[in-house]
Amino acid sequence: MDKIAVVDTTFARINMGHFARDELSKCEGHGERFEIISKTVPGFKDLAVECKRLIEIDGAKIAIALGMPGKADIDQVCAHEASQGIMAAQLMTNTHILEVFVHENETDSADELRRVCEDRARKHAKNAFWILYAPEELAKRAGQGVRQGFEDAGPVA
Amino acid sequence: MDKIAVVDTTFARINMGHFARDELSKCEGHGERFEIISKTVPGFKDLAVECKRLIEIDGAKIAIALGMPGKADIDQVCAHEASQGIMAAQLMTNTHILEVFVHENETDSADELRRVCEDRARKHAKNAFWILYAPEELAKRAGQGVRQGFEDAGPVA
Amino acid sequence: MDKIAVVDTTFARINMGHFARDELSKCEGHGERFEIISKTVPGFKDLAVECKRLIEIDGAKIAIALGMPGKADIDQVCAHEASQGIMAAQLMTNTHILEVFVHENETDSADELRRVCEDRARKHAKNAFWILYAPEELAKRAGQGVRQGFEDAGPVA
Amino acid sequence: MDKIAVVDTTFARINMGHFARDELSKCEGHGERFEIISKTVPGFKDLAVECKRLIEIDGAKIAIALGMPGKADIDQVCAHEASQGIMAAQLMTNTHILEVFVHENETDSADELRRVCEDRARKHAKNAFWILYAPEELAKRAGQGVRQGFEDAGPVA
Amino acid sequence: MDKIAVVDTTFARINMGHFARDELSKCEGHGERFEIISKTVPGFKDLAVECKRLIEIDGAKIAIALGMPGKADIDQVCAHEASQGIMAAQLMTNTHILEVFVHENETDSADELRRVCEDRARKHAKNAFWILYAPEELAKRAGQGVRQGFEDAGPVA
Repeated sequence: MDKIAVVDTTFARINMGHFARDELSKCEGHGERFEIISKTVPGFKDLAVECKRLIEIDGAKIAIALGMPGKADIDQVCAHEASQGIMAAQLMTNTHILEVFVHENETDSADELRRVCEDRARKHAKNAFWILYAPEELAKRAGQGVRQGFEDAGPVA
Repeated sequence: MDKIAVVDTTFARINMGHFARDELSKCEGHGERFEIISKTVPGFKDLAVECKRLIEIDGAKIAIALGMPGKADIDQVCAHEASQGIMAAQLMTNTHILEVFVHENETDSADELRRVCEDRARKHAKNAFWILYAPEELAKRAGQGVRQGFEDAGPVA
Repeated sequence: MDKIAVVDTTFARINMGHFARDELSKCEGHGERFEIISKTVPGFKDLAVECKRLIEIDGAKIAIALGMPGKADIDQVCAHEASQGIMAAQLMTNTHILEVFVHENETDSADELRRVCEDRARKHAKNAFWILYAPEELAKRAGQGVRQGFEDAGPVA
Repeated sequence: MDKIAVVDTTFARINMGHFARDELSKCEGHGERFEIISKTVPGFKDLAVECKRLIEIDGAKIAIALGMPGKADIDQVCAHEASQGIMAAQLMTNTHILEVFVHENETDSADELRRVCEDRARKHAKNAFWILYAPEELAKRAGQGVRQGFEDAGPVA
Repeated sequence: MDKIAVVDTTFARINMGHFARDELSKCEGHGERFEIISKTVPGFKDLAVECKRLIEIDGAKIAIALGMPGKADIDQVCAHEASQGIMAAQLMTNTHILEVFVHENETDSADELRRVCEDRARKHAKNAFWILYAPEELAKRAGQGVRQGFEDAGPVA
């Protein structure tokens, strides 16, 4: 059975991994074609190596890396480092790792932050599923201004 | 038959991959010497690994990676990460990947944005063709201030 | 017996490695299941290669890299380079390296700086232990806004 | 016969590769000990992989990569990415690649821009020759404030 | 006999390599346990690959890379690229490379610049010696606020 990896952090202030796992569990073939493996690491700079381990050691076919950069300036630098690590891990493994970062400063509202986290995590979980099993779903949305976390921007008018 | 890979995104608000494929389909040898393979990924940070997969797993000889960074500050950081990934993918595969990014904030006009996308995508598709099959076309334009998306700057007067 | 590596610097103005080693020495299995190996390098840009050497040459299963960036602007650039190196070392070895950096400018108080160093070093030492031997401790704290150095931010209200 | 690679771009507004090749053709051993191989790529972000290909596939012993970043802010980011690529290509091949970038905004004068391009390209071509065949020429200039493009800064008074 | 590599540049305005070699020549075991190998490259972005060559081709056990970034803004970006290259070279070779950079703008005084260069170069030469042959000298200075170029900051009061 294929494996889809979900990795999140103790640093995030919302359980982002839950949304990703829940969405995947509703996708066709869950428990038959693919199963979910999951891991939690301290912070988002630990995501890249954990995803790489789950791909190379545990055999995951794709990974979803979820993190929540804080509000401080230094958090933006750290997020950049975490992203570069996720990029490198993808290239070293020839495997997609979908980065699902929600910056705590994207909104001032706790409710909206939760909505952004859930929407972004669920949509990227679906993207991971499509990359593996239904690439035509992505192909038909090419250039459509698709967004995760907020409403689609849509194609240029 | 050689393969030329075209990879675009669902995030972009204009179907950039279409222009690249259309231009390649008019190049000499299409369908005989080379064919086009194509893939759509969610965002531009997913381009690098997809190009690398198409090169290493599917055997593409060159790739064209098309993306449209948004207007937010964070989009510029992400574009930088995406570009570094494309750079790394090239070096790891010894294969050219032409990056065709059109920043949404290059212009305020929807019409001009479309023109920039089409022009840049078509010209880089031609560049990809020349790199593979007609390097002398590039050599004779060395230092000529050639541009994609806008008019050539031309040589220094 | 497993090895946990602790690497610190002569540049730091507080003996951060001491706190990490002390915490690890209180963890279950110290001296039986795992032992601590330790090294001091001049500055934080020397941490990455030393951690990699302790992992690849000495066989450490995980590493803790402790450093204290100074107050100057150039120190922030150097910290970024040091972090990128630690990220790369993790990916090249498929091994976690927990980065424990305390920026000298996080606080103006010498006492608080000491408290931050001790708290962050001890908590990440415990994180290293959990990653190796008790990943369920991390999993149950997913999305809980856990912090090192300061109080937990906690989950979004 | 050894090969020295010269790679330039169609983006540059001055034929920088010409100066490098001309200088190399006057160096001792040209046509006997070494020959020049040359390639033109679209932009400076394509330089790194082309140099790496000429080193690894065509057997070049050293490469000279010439580019001209434009005046826009985004050009500075791209130049940084191009430089990082050239750095990585060197490390992956254990081969020197001399980066000869002339920023279009180094001067407002077209004449001076041409002089800078010619001077920098010629001097780095000579440096490439010295690295391969006369390292003592470099050793005796250690710490002498040598510059390319402009006059030497000279040693600190 | 072990080899310690010293690499400097023609760009620097002070002969930094001289200080490093002089210091090493006074260390115990010089000429018996270890010898110095030395190379000069044009600029600091050429240091990383040269150090890597001396490690991998000539067998150096450690390297010291000395450079002097200029005063212009672009020099800071280049210094960052040079540092990232040195970091990568260390990780690719599992070998320490001590970066000894003196920014020309660290001081306005030519005399002080010379003192900084000499002090930093000599102290890092000693650090290189200690890493190889006397790691306990570093261990006992852990967290002591040791500096090179200027006076030690000392431990936090």
